[in-house]
Amino acid sequence: MPAVVMAIVAFCSSITLIPLSSHCLARVGLRGRDLLKPYKQLVPESLGIVPACVLIVLLFLFTPVFFANHLKTHASNLQPQFPHHKLSTYLSALLSLQTATLLGFLDDLFDIRWRYKLPIPLIASIPMLVVYFAEGGITDVVIPLPLRQLLGRVVHLGPLYYIYMAMLSTFCTNSINILAGINGIEVAQAVVIAGSVAINDLLHLPLSHGFVSHLPQFAAHWSSTALVGPTTQEQAERHLFSLCFMLPLIGASLGLLYHNWYPARVFPGDTYCYFAGMAFAIVAVLGHFSKTLLLFFLPQVINFGLSTPQLFGLMACPRHRVPRYVHGTGVLEPSRAYFDKPPAFYVSVPLRVLSAVGVVQLEVGGNGRITCSTNLTLLNAFLCLFGKMSERQLASVTVVFQVACSVLAFAVRYGLAGLVYD
Amino acid sequence: MPAVVMAIVAFCSSITLIPLSSHCLARVGLRGRDLLKPYKQLVPESLGIVPACVLIVLLFLFTPVFFANHLKTHASNLQPQFPHHKLSTYLSALLSLQTATLLGFLDDLFDIRWRYKLPIPLIASIPMLVVYFAEGGITDVVIPLPLRQLLGRVVHLGPLYYIYMAMLSTFCTNSINILAGINGIEVAQAVVIAGSVAINDLLHLPLSHGFVSHLPQFAAHWSSTALVGPTTQEQAERHLFSLCFMLPLIGASLGLLYHNWYPARVFPGDTYCYFAGMAFAIVAVLGHFSKTLLLFFLPQVINFGLSTPQLFGLMACPRHRVPRYVHGTGVLEPSRAYFDKPPAFYVSVPLRVLSAVGVVQLEVGGNGRITCSTNLTLLNAFLCLFGKMSERQLASVTVVFQVACSVLAFAVRYGLAGLVYD
Repeated sequence: MPAVVMAIVAFCSSITLIPLSSHCLARVGLRGRDLLKPYKQLVPESLGIVPACVLIVLLFLFTPVFFANHLKTHASNLQPQFPHHKLSTYLSALLSLQTATLLGFLDDLFDIRWRYKLPIPLIASIPMLVVYFAEGGITDVVIPLPLRQLLGRVVHLGPLYYIYMAMLSTFCTNSINILAGINGIEVAQAVVIAGSVAINDLLHLPLSHGFVSHLPQFAAHWSSTALVGPTTQEQAERHLFSLCFMLPLIGASLGLLYHNWYPARVFPGDTYCYFAGMAFAIVAVLGHFSKTLLLFFLPQVINFGLSTPQLFGLMACPRHRVPRYVHGTGVLEPSRAYFDKPPAFYVSVPLRVLSAVGVVQLEVGGNGRITCSTNLTLLNAFLCLFGKMSERQLASVTVVFQVACSVLAFAVRYGLAGLVYD
Repeated sequence: MPAVVMAIVAFCSSITLIPLSSHCLARVGLRGRDLLKPYKQLVPESLGIVPACVLIVLLFLFTPVFFANHLKTHASNLQPQFPHHKLSTYLSALLSLQTATLLGFLDDLFDIRWRYKLPIPLIASIPMLVVYFAEGGITDVVIPLPLRQLLGRVVHLGPLYYIYMAMLSTFCTNSINILAGINGIEVAQAVVIAGSVAINDLLHLPLSHGFVSHLPQFAAHWSSTALVGPTTQEQAERHLFSLCFMLPLIGASLGLLYHNWYPARVFPGDTYCYFAGMAFAIVAVLGHFSKTLLLFFLPQVINFGLSTPQLFGLMACPRHRVPRYVHGTGVLEPSRAYFDKPPAFYVSVPLRVLSAVGVVQLEVGGNGRITCSTNLTLLNAFLCLFGKMSERQLASVTVVFQVACSVLAFAVRYGLAGLVYD
């Protein structure tokens, strides 16, 4: 319940504080041109700091509330053992979240270079990892049935698992950051992911078992057995913890989305991407559902996969890869990268495959060599697939795609997973 | 030992990173005129963010080191019980410190108004207080011998003690902030206080008992009995914890002091005052030596006491109360506040007393009424007492006074305390 109150407070504070603080941010130089608009008016940037601060302050203020029961019994000496491990979990989560916010904001202010930027989420995740370890950190991975003959039932990853978790925070923050460029999509995708995580949490809480009994017979049967299975007290607590982060995150983000949706009056900045990405990494690591989280990140994974040739310097990568605004028409077309020299075969072959699927448009010179390609991003892929459209339409398509991927993720997690795990 | 390594690393990083980052801060508008210099060149401000970030990153990186022993035995299942309460203490300290830094920096950037600023350290201290409570927070105060007939041996303060601790963080941050205005003194006073706290910690560590045995007979006898008395394992651990914060803080601050000492190339900003003040409040609360800390804050207490008539609006308070630079001479004289209407008796009587002592200079009109007074700050008091001097000399006098107060504090804590406590 406190989480719902927090979500409402977060939404209200976020939606009212953003217009009030936007001129302060603009004053210290945090403003930028909207590349996809005919007008040249500057838009205040890094407004992600507002929902981030709102969420952090709320989590601070609600710390005693979350632990009220324990504190009460502790004070009356009824229960000598205060759950210190839960408190340290909570504090480490807050610490990682706040570090990501602070560093994201410094990044927005000072434009930190890429090579200094990459370790940021790694440093921010240290407290979380120490707590994971101290909690008795499980680093075993259960192997799917088809691979068990090869690898055995359980693989003990040990330190590799910690590297995986640290990488997860880097991935979550940066993958939201690179699926960006048109109004509203950074925030909208985070809202959809947070919503999916929250629904997944609700499925693991005891109350959902009560809830499903009201569903039609077949749904109730399906959900209470195959869908979630028996939930232990510990699992339920971890998902409750996750819910306490996700609901206020949704509230605060919706407040930002209201101002950031087309036509944007504010930009979220890297601050928001670091903050939201870290929040997802934290709940997934401390809630032990990092694989499920990655399923919800499907569009980001696709976008990252598509982008790899450009991100890793295998082909030309212009400074901005966002779709291009066609002057006078109000619609967007895919932006292009031009090749000075013909691409190597390990680039041109995938490009031709992608072109055949329709997610890339190529220009081929007289000698059959590729001279130009649309930039490899999900947004450009949508424009190649569905034709030119307005910025608002493209944002809507992206959100619909994200929701569709979440539905697919639930199907995979609770449908297919039953087939490959026992 | 890790603390010494951290201090050295902190000093080196701080001293090299400050010149590198000062132009970045200046670019986003964080620069100000040095009021006490003939030249008008702007000086980069808020460089306190550098030592703060250095210290926080170091504390992050060293988290696994501090808990290495526990983590090792935990991993090998030799000791089933990981000291979660220590970890949550450490994390809450980091969290409070980081919050103070973040909010201090936002304050520097956006010039937050006083009424929004005051609750900042209160919010930042919540995690620390929850941990204090969960640790079995003692809220009993031992009463000095002379007052015991009146109040009994121990007074149970309960919730009042939490309010006291929250106020302590507010006092520590703001009292450093108001004893400011000439080059280097914010940082120098923090270094002296941190040094005093560190010496006090060393006195409580087992190693100091080994160390004192090399002292002359009388000193060894005095220190090992009257001075510190038997130290429990728990006390020693708390002071070790404090030392791990104080030594790197000294290192990082010395790096800043090098650039901030007369003539200042950079200013520390509110960021530094919040950060350093919070660090003191944290170690004192979690180390259970808040009264001793207040003894080290004697100059700040005097300055605050002196300032109250102006801070609480009982007499005229100009925007800047720093001493005035006398053009052409290179020396400072006390700055003055002029009275539009004659002050009430409850202001004029204390003013006349202070004037008799020599720490305030008054101008009296024909009718015997006070028309003008020097501003009520410690810096102006020094100028009244010792005459005009250069900025560098005034800074040195302030530092010497701070050191003298620390010596006095040790005498009170370990000399007089023995007389009024059993």
